[in-house]
Amino acid sequence: MILSPLMSTSTLLASTGGAEGEAAAKILAVAVTLATVAIFVSAQILGEIAVRIGLPAVLGELIAGFIIGVSGVHLVMLGNGGQVADWAVMVVQLISGGDSATIRDIFAGPVRILIDDYAQIGVGVLLFKIGLEADLKELIKVGPQAASVAVAGVVLPFVAGFWGLTLLFQLGTIPAIFGGAALTATSIGITSRIMQDMGVLNTKEGQIILGAAVLDDILGIAILAVAVGIAEYGTVEIANVLGIIVSATLFVLGAIALNQVFGPRYINFLDKLNNPYSILVGAIVFLFLMATVAQTIGLEAILGCFAAGIVLGDTKATHALEQACEPLVALFATIFFVSIGAKTDLSVLNLANPESRDGLVIALFLTVVAIAGKLAAGYFVFTRDRVDRLAIGTGMIPRGEVGLVFAGLGAATGALSGSVNVAIVLMVIATTFVAPPLLRWVFTNQHKQLEIAP
Amino acid sequence: MILSPLMSTSTLLASTGGAEGEAAAKILAVAVTLATVAIFVSAQILGEIAVRIGLPAVLGELIAGFIIGVSGVHLVMLGNGGQVADWAVMVVQLISGGDSATIRDIFAGPVRILIDDYAQIGVGVLLFKIGLEADLKELIKVGPQAASVAVAGVVLPFVAGFWGLTLLFQLGTIPAIFGGAALTATSIGITSRIMQDMGVLNTKEGQIILGAAVLDDILGIAILAVAVGIAEYGTVEIANVLGIIVSATLFVLGAIALNQVFGPRYINFLDKLNNPYSILVGAIVFLFLMATVAQTIGLEAILGCFAAGIVLGDTKATHALEQACEPLVALFATIFFVSIGAKTDLSVLNLANPESRDGLVIALFLTVVAIAGKLAAGYFVFTRDRVDRLAIGTGMIPRGEVGLVFAGLGAATGALSGSVNVAIVLMVIATTFVAPPLLRWVFTNQHKQLEIAP
Repeated sequence: MILSPLMSTSTLLASTGGAEGEAAAKILAVAVTLATVAIFVSAQILGEIAVRIGLPAVLGELIAGFIIGVSGVHLVMLGNGGQVADWAVMVVQLISGGDSATIRDIFAGPVRILIDDYAQIGVGVLLFKIGLEADLKELIKVGPQAASVAVAGVVLPFVAGFWGLTLLFQLGTIPAIFGGAALTATSIGITSRIMQDMGVLNTKEGQIILGAAVLDDILGIAILAVAVGIAEYGTVEIANVLGIIVSATLFVLGAIALNQVFGPRYINFLDKLNNPYSILVGAIVFLFLMATVAQTIGLEAILGCFAAGIVLGDTKATHALEQACEPLVALFATIFFVSIGAKTDLSVLNLANPESRDGLVIALFLTVVAIAGKLAAGYFVFTRDRVDRLAIGTGMIPRGEVGLVFAGLGAATGALSGSVNVAIVLMVIATTFVAPPLLRWVFTNQHKQLEIAP
Repeated sequence: MILSPLMSTSTLLASTGGAEGEAAAKILAVAVTLATVAIFVSAQILGEIAVRIGLPAVLGELIAGFIIGVSGVHLVMLGNGGQVADWAVMVVQLISGGDSATIRDIFAGPVRILIDDYAQIGVGVLLFKIGLEADLKELIKVGPQAASVAVAGVVLPFVAGFWGLTLLFQLGTIPAIFGGAALTATSIGITSRIMQDMGVLNTKEGQIILGAAVLDDILGIAILAVAVGIAEYGTVEIANVLGIIVSATLFVLGAIALNQVFGPRYINFLDKLNNPYSILVGAIVFLFLMATVAQTIGLEAILGCFAAGIVLGDTKATHALEQACEPLVALFATIFFVSIGAKTDLSVLNLANPESRDGLVIALFLTVVAIAGKLAAGYFVFTRDRVDRLAIGTGMIPRGEVGLVFAGLGAATGALSGSVNVAIVLMVIATTFVAPPLLRWVFTNQHKQLEIAP
C-alpha cells in the first residue's frame, strides 16, 4: 500500500521455459540478489556502528537506506523514472549477461516490486508479533489513557500547524489542511521497533504509546478522508467520515472480541491437523485475511496484522508463533526499515533550489510543531497514576511512512505547492530520525530501574 | 531460474505515492494475498487428505497445485499469455476496485513474479537447511557410492532412452538426445523433502541419494550443454563441456574445504556483532553469494544454497540456523511444491489431440525407462556394506522441475516436435507423482526398524 510499487501493464516478454525467459529470470535473480545483499550488508554495518556509538540500530538501518537508495548510490527503491546506478548494471551484466536496457527495466520494475513486497512482509510480521506479545488486558485498561493521548496528539499538532501555515506563511486553506493533517500521523512501525529493541514495549508507557498509535491510525484515515474530500470536491461527506470511524472502531473492538471467542478455537483446530506447521501457516492465512479487511475499511494493512496478533495472543500457540516470527522479522523487517531510508530523497535539502529554501523555513516550523504537539499530547494522559508523560509524548513523535502518504496524496490532488511538499517530507525525515535517540534517552534516563536490553 | 517469470519491460505506470500508484499497489496487495491464501489453504487441505490416506504430504501439495493452477481454476502460476479466472478478477475488484484489464495484467505480471520468487526462496532455504543438517563426513564417506549411482543413473536411462527413441519411434538424433537427456535428471527438491518428512534423510541410503542427486545436477548441466550445442551448432565443444564439469566439481570440493577453514570463522565473526540476528542475516547473505556463484557456473541456484548449508554446517550456530530456517521452509517451500503442480499443464493428456495420443505412447516408453533406469542404477552402488539398493534407486526417480527445464530448452531450440515435448512433460509428471508414495512404501517396508515420522 504505502510502499507504492512500480507496476507495469505491458505485454509479457518471457515465455515459460523458453531461452529468453530463462535469460530474463537469471537477470532478475542476480539483480534482486544484489539489492537484497546490499540491504543486509549495509544494515548490518550501519546498525553495528549505531549501536556502538549508543544509538538505536534502527537509525543505522534508516541511514543504510540513504546510502544505497535514491539519495545515495541508486541501487534500491528507485522512484518514478529512477535509474539504477551504472555500476549495478555492470555487475549484473558480468554475472548474468543481458543488455543494459533490459537490466535497467528489471531493476526499475520487478526488483522494485519484490523489495517493496519483502518490506511489506517484514512490517506486517513485525506488527503481528507485537500484537501477539501485547498484553490485551493491559491494553484495554490503558484504553482511555491511550485515547486521550491520541486525540490530543491529533488535535494539537493539526490546529497549531493549520493556524501557523495560514497566518505565518499565508498558505491557502487546502494546503494548510494537508500540512496540518501530515502532522497528526504516528509511525507505529518505527515506534514499536525501538521500544521492542529496548525491551520497554510491555511497560505501561509502551502499551499507552501502542494503543495511542493504533487509534491515531483510525483518526488519521478520517482526517485524510476529510482533507481529500475538501481538496477534490470542496466539501466533506460527514456520513462518509463517520462511516470510516465507525467501521474502524468496530474492527478494533472485533479483534478484541475474537481474541476470546475465536483465537483459541482456531488454534485448537489447526493443532489437530497432521502438518507440523499447520499452526504457523494457519496463523499467516488469518493475518492475510485481517490485513485485507483492514485495507478494505481504509486502514493500513499493518493494523490488520497487529489485530491478527491480538486475536491469536494468549493461546497455547502464542509463544511458538512468536518464535516462528523471529527469523521472518529479522530478515524482512530489516528490509522495511532500510527501504524507508532508501526511498527518502534528500535532494529536497538542496539550498541552491528556491523551493527547497522556502520549504526549509516551513519545514523548521512544521518540525517544531510536530515535536511540541506530540510531547504536549503526552501530558494529556487521562490518569492519576504515575506514568512517564514525557516518554509517551516522545513515543508519538516519529511520522515515518504514514506522514509521507499524506504528502503524497496531497501532491497527487494538486493541493500542495512544491515548497510545502518539500517541507512535509523534511518534517517527516526530521521527526523520524530524531525520535529513536530521543526515545532511547528518555527511557534510559527516566527508567534507570528498567533493565535496558543492549 | 527454473521457475521462469513473466517479465515486463514496458514503461512504468505508477508514480510513487500518487493516487494511481496507490490504487495499483492496493490491487497488487489484494491479488497476491488471494493467490498466497489459495496456495496455503489448498496445500493444507490436500496435504491433510494425503497424510490421512497414507500418502506423503508433498503429493497433496502437488495436487493442490493442479487444482488452483493452469490445469484447474486458473488462479496462480499462469503460463505465457495465461489468463486469470474471471471469479478471481471479480474478487479482487470487489475489495480493491480497479478495472479488470489492470487486474489481469497484475495477476499475469507482478503476482506471478512474486509467487515465483517465494517459491525460489522456499526451495533455496529448504536445500540450505538440508545442507546444514547433512552429515558431511558421512557424505564424503559415501561419495564413491553416490558417484557410482549418479553415473549409472545418468548413463542407463540416457542410453536406453536414446536407443528406444531412435529405433522404436524413428526419431532423429537431436530429439532423441533431448529425450534421453531429460531422463537423466533427479529432482533434489522433491526427493529430499520426502526423505525429510519421513525422517530418513540421515540414513546411509538418504545420504547416498542426496550425494547422487547433487552429482546428477553436475552431470545434468554437462549433458545439457552437449545437447544444446549439438542442436544449435551441430557440434560439441569438448573444452566447454570439460570446463563446466571441472568448475562444478571445484565448486563442490570448494564447499567441503570451506566448511573447515571458513565456516566456523565466519560464524564467530557474526557472533561478535551486536545485532541479535547477525548470524541469520550473515548466513543468508552467504547463501545468496553461493547461489550466485552456482548460477554463474551454470549449476542450479539451489545447489549453491545446499553448498552454503554444507559450509555453515557443524558450527556452534548450526542448530540455531536450522531452527531459524523452519518457519521460512514451512511457508515458502509449501509455495514451491504447490507451484510445481500449478505450472503443470494437464491438458497435454487430452486424447482428442493427435499429438497428445502420439505423445502418450512415447511417454509410456519414457516413463518405463525413467523408472527402470534409476531403479537399476540403485544396484550399481559401489559397496560391500548392506544398503537398501531398491530405496536408493527409488529416491532417484522424481524428475520434477529439472526434467521440465530439459523439455523447455529442447522446445526453445526447436529440436523437439509437439508430441515428444508432450511425452517428456508426461514422463516428468508421472515420475514426480509416482516417486513419493513409492519412496514411502520402500522405506517403510524395508526399514520396519526405523521410527517413521507421521
